[in-house]
Amino acid sequence: MPKFMDIHHGMKGVTPDELSAAHQADLAIQSEEGVTFEHAWADTDSGDVFCLSDAPSAGAVQRIHERAGHKADEIHPLSISL
Amino acid sequence: MPKFMDIHHGMKGVTPDELSAAHQADLAIQSEEGVTFEHAWADTDSGDVFCLSDAPSAGAVQRIHERAGHKADEIHPLSISL
Repeated sequence: MPKFMDIHHGMKGVTPDELSAAHQADLAIQSEEGVTFEHAWADTDSGDVFCLSDAPSAGAVQRIHERAGHKADEIHPLSISL
Repeated sequence: MPKFMDIHHGMKGVTPDELSAAHQADLAIQSEEGVTFEHAWADTDSGDVFCLSDAPSAGAVQRIHERAGHKADEIHPLSISL
């Protein structure tokens, strides 16, 4: 299954509770698109949030994020994973 | 130990062997700054490379990358990790 790194900008000051709630919203529906979100990390100073997933396509990742209310700004297919 | 996501731009077309060699160059000296690189991932189409590490500081991450010959363009402290 391909891996993806998606990035959300503009989330400066997001709290752990807010990020956890957003991540849980993804996890709750991810199986409907065959996506598995492995991690979410935030740089609360820059406002960048990084999500690592296994998914059939970038579109599948984005559909889950959109339905959960937080569309990704960038989705990177990770063609090399070390 | 804090976590960091650092990003290298402009590595479009990097091969698995090239990325592996660069990553190994980091691993060979990382202990001198107390850094542990956990993963490196590449989007070979956009040229973005993402490195996840545990490190005492962003400066420590950058010193290893610089000495290994590939300075990071962005280093994000991950204040939230899920």
